[in-house]
Amino acid sequence: MTGRIAFAFLTLTLLGVHPQLKPANIKAFNGFDLVDKAGNIRKPADFRDRYQALGVYTPVDLNNNTDMHYTYASPGTAEYYRKTGKFADGTVLVKEVFATDHAQMTTGDAHWATSTKVWFVMIKDDKGRYPGNPLWGNGWGWALFKADAPDKQVATNYKKDCLGCHVPAQSTDWVYVQGYPVLKSR
Amino acid sequence: MTGRIAFAFLTLTLLGVHPQLKPANIKAFNGFDLVDKAGNIRKPADFRDRYQALGVYTPVDLNNNTDMHYTYASPGTAEYYRKTGKFADGTVLVKEVFATDHAQMTTGDAHWATSTKVWFVMIKDDKGRYPGNPLWGNGWGWALFKADAPDKQVATNYKKDCLGCHVPAQSTDWVYVQGYPVLKSR
Repeated sequence: MTGRIAFAFLTLTLLGVHPQLKPANIKAFNGFDLVDKAGNIRKPADFRDRYQALGVYTPVDLNNNTDMHYTYASPGTAEYYRKTGKFADGTVLVKEVFATDHAQMTTGDAHWATSTKVWFVMIKDDKGRYPGNPLWGNGWGWALFKADAPDKQVATNYKKDCLGCHVPAQSTDWVYVQGYPVLKSR
Repeated sequence: MTGRIAFAFLTLTLLGVHPQLKPANIKAFNGFDLVDKAGNIRKPADFRDRYQALGVYTPVDLNNNTDMHYTYASPGTAEYYRKTGKFADGTVLVKEVFATDHAQMTTGDAHWATSTKVWFVMIKDDKGRYPGNPLWGNGWGWALFKADAPDKQVATNYKKDCLGCHVPAQSTDWVYVQGYPVLKSR
């Protein structure tokens, strides 16, 4: 058995599937690794390092106060989307909402992300895996984590806690794809 | 020899260094692959897919017009920086400057990136490799590409074309690290 595992790795190497050279080709639509049998969702670890960034939305109010909403996706998400126009079953999206600071710089009054307020997590589910769980529906699992307890999922019903803000994006599978350049082009 | 290679891969597997699970451990500080012998810099291909995002700055003017400046870094940059407080020799940074659009959403007047205006590229050089080239100095190579000719490097002198805007960030190796959450924490 040990020999077989080693052989498999050697084969990957000979095929040119060398991980250091082709991170873009890594496909890891394994979002259900974050879900238990009842449909409870955990936040992925180290997503700032491991996931690809789709893009950032910055809401600005009348006083130039802003939040910044960074959206990260599990590896391979953008490549799959560009090819198919869809999010793969098992895709994980994390929206990290940051407070901001700002200062006058050569480019203007520049705003940047500081501390995290909340994280929203979505996991693409083509199969309706958890029909009795109020955090699953409309093709996704939905979860919310707050900075004061980063590992505690606190949403109770996605229709109440999540879906409202996504209604304008219903035609693009509830995701605001227009703000994510990598979904259009590498 | 074949057995040794296989054994090395098996060892990595047993140590938990599985490439599909830990792309963050990929180290690819190979920025000089983008540089010819004279010091001319090419823009990396597919960086939106292959690189990690460090973060985004959004300058806002008095009319709520914005650009968005996305900064991407070659794989492993953030992990190395968190451990050492430095950018590794060969690190590549790409700042992609986008025009924006905006609309009223549930979060406020939300701004997002649309088309690219320019790309700035920096390559970390600890060794002063190109002393006679006016695009290298202060520990970096500096380059500029514009949307109307995306593969044509158009900066002529980094002190004139690049450094001015970086002066406020001199103490952090000319990079605005405060706006990049992943440099502080995964």
